[in-house]
Amino acid sequence: MFNFNYFTPTKVVFGKETELQVADLIREFGGTKVLIHYGGGSVIRSGLLKKVTDILDGAGIAYVTLGGAVPNPHLGLVYEGIDLCKKEGVDFLLAVGGGSAIDSAKAIGYGVTNEGDVWDFYDYKREATACLPLGVILTLAATGSEMSDSSVITKEEGLVKRGYSSDYCRPKFAIMNPELTMTLPDYQTACGCTDIMMHTMERYFTNGGNMEITDALAEGLLRTVMVNAEILKKDPKNYDARAEVMWAGSLAHNGLTGCGNDGGDWMTHKLEHELGGLYDVAHGAGLAAIWGSWARYVMKDCLPRFKRFAVNVMGVAPEGTDEKIALKGIEAMEAFYRRIDMPTNLRELGVNATDEDLALMAHKCAVGVDGAMGSAKLLYEKDMLAIFKASV
Amino acid sequence: MFNFNYFTPTKVVFGKETELQVADLIREFGGTKVLIHYGGGSVIRSGLLKKVTDILDGAGIAYVTLGGAVPNPHLGLVYEGIDLCKKEGVDFLLAVGGGSAIDSAKAIGYGVTNEGDVWDFYDYKREATACLPLGVILTLAATGSEMSDSSVITKEEGLVKRGYSSDYCRPKFAIMNPELTMTLPDYQTACGCTDIMMHTMERYFTNGGNMEITDALAEGLLRTVMVNAEILKKDPKNYDARAEVMWAGSLAHNGLTGCGNDGGDWMTHKLEHELGGLYDVAHGAGLAAIWGSWARYVMKDCLPRFKRFAVNVMGVAPEGTDEKIALKGIEAMEAFYRRIDMPTNLRELGVNATDEDLALMAHKCAVGVDGAMGSAKLLYEKDMLAIFKASV
Repeated sequence: MFNFNYFTPTKVVFGKETELQVADLIREFGGTKVLIHYGGGSVIRSGLLKKVTDILDGAGIAYVTLGGAVPNPHLGLVYEGIDLCKKEGVDFLLAVGGGSAIDSAKAIGYGVTNEGDVWDFYDYKREATACLPLGVILTLAATGSEMSDSSVITKEEGLVKRGYSSDYCRPKFAIMNPELTMTLPDYQTACGCTDIMMHTMERYFTNGGNMEITDALAEGLLRTVMVNAEILKKDPKNYDARAEVMWAGSLAHNGLTGCGNDGGDWMTHKLEHELGGLYDVAHGAGLAAIWGSWARYVMKDCLPRFKRFAVNVMGVAPEGTDEKIALKGIEAMEAFYRRIDMPTNLRELGVNATDEDLALMAHKCAVGVDGAMGSAKLLYEKDMLAIFKASV
Repeated sequence: MFNFNYFTPTKVVFGKETELQVADLIREFGGTKVLIHYGGGSVIRSGLLKKVTDILDGAGIAYVTLGGAVPNPHLGLVYEGIDLCKKEGVDFLLAVGGGSAIDSAKAIGYGVTNEGDVWDFYDYKREATACLPLGVILTLAATGSEMSDSSVITKEEGLVKRGYSSDYCRPKFAIMNPELTMTLPDYQTACGCTDIMMHTMERYFTNGGNMEITDALAEGLLRTVMVNAEILKKDPKNYDARAEVMWAGSLAHNGLTGCGNDGGDWMTHKLEHELGGLYDVAHGAGLAAIWGSWARYVMKDCLPRFKRFAVNVMGVAPEGTDEKIALKGIEAMEAFYRRIDMPTNLRELGVNATDEDLALMAHKCAVGVDGAMGSAKLLYEKDMLAIFKASV
């Protein structure tokens, strides 16, 4: 068991009509001039953006707006947001949307409060010392960015996708109304559920310092998401199922499911980042397409954890050799992905990768992790390539 | 499912030697003049207090000390602490100990930052609007006060024990080194485990708005505490088991295991408070002594929850009628209490209550809850008396 820090200062306001509290919450955390940052047109079409601006108008809170945050949010828009905040004297950020809007807002917050180029932080050149206070109205359960310390930004030049983490960017509040996620397309919902589960699975499959209570919470969370992902496939407007998944999304990535371990494996995410860099694929689907190949490749080096996962999460009977049980767990996970229409290989993901593509991705991935990474099994470039090849 | 707020801003610093970070943490949260508040002599005998003052001396952080916080901490010491803080210009509180020292420090923090008599808040007369920032070095896993919004203070005159809750008093940081709990007497350890479980069970046995993920987390937590309580009975110096219980203690009472429900039942606590008012009993042992009688009395009105508890927490086979399964769960819980030397009735608790005592406690309890309370089953004075009688 390792020492750990656990810090989740975000005030979560969860449930129906909670977006009506947005003005009070902004005031509670000292906001007087707000940048409302959002993504595409969905928050306009749904009327949510107008609802929010009406509430701020009614409360006498000044604001400016900036839309356009795309999946894998771009550095260019971050710069634009920083300039706008400085020009307008913005002292509070409100992200309305999913992980893209939140991550983009976090980067804007760093840029406004720190001198120099904000990309330096994502380029591992220096550390931020502050961030503008940030609130969130969440419309998509997936990335967990509403409580997390991390953000991922893509620099358009060379399509460099990089994450940066610090406690400064943890949102002050997160408004989570499950009703706001009801109009999501089924594919997006399934991608979100996959991403949520993977945030906890990346922490679960490790060779270092596991803690029983952390495992118990992680397993309970994973089982809950699986049950509710299948409910949502049949009944996308099921409020309770939306709520279960939404709350799981925050808990899966706020640190709770990794307390006491070595920090997690994270190689499925790293491999998927390369996939997302080269092809236009949804992050959750990319994770599902890679995971089974990763799992089979590393299983023997992390057998007790894969066995435990099979029994406690996937409900595999603990009969036969550990390896057989572990393999059944992986197969059951892939069967679940198929039931919610997620891919289990690159072909099903819609990607026809050439050998050159696979080699390029493995190489970029190895460079990105400084040679080797992984807790379930330490992976080098040759291992990454083998996993990519197995996932075709 | 109910709307809920979740707010746990406490920075948890968990693991071996984490107390060495105390000066840095006090500085991080702006403390320049500290009141170190503690209980009896154990932190002196163990050397912890000297270690802490040496660290503050080395860091050049000024402090004053105040010991004497007893179980069911007294209002008189709170007043003393308030006067001391005002006289010395204290701007940060450091509680070193368990729930008594922390709760007492919280009350001191209210008293320093709010005008008038601090007892007003505990007497439900008005609301606090601030609290001094507070840090914790935890030496006893039980009350969860290190992350919670609540504190319980006893007014010596008439032995009135009252709780007050507000987010203002949530600690800024909590240093949790499981090694600091290793010298606890076995009875105290078992009492702590009982209290921890009860904080989650009070939230679990409700008739309103349960959420699957909350249940899954609660059940995982309860199972973990049970396993590790038994390990600690045989092996009190087991670091991992101490750590599991310590972290469970915080999560059991920081709000996590109640998200989405109606707030919980809390009648076992209310009944035990009367027991603790009349007799000199340890809180955890008092809870264990009452719980079985409460559970049998309310079981039929909350049957699905008792059945679920039996199967998912106590491992009862789901065979036979719901009532039989539920009853087996209660019996299994009592068997667990016996295994860790906790009482399951007043006699085993060492209390010989007269009929007059029972009637007095039931009456005081009913007055204390304004007539009736309980979510598993709404209890009136006659119900409270029946439970007390059944627990003799």
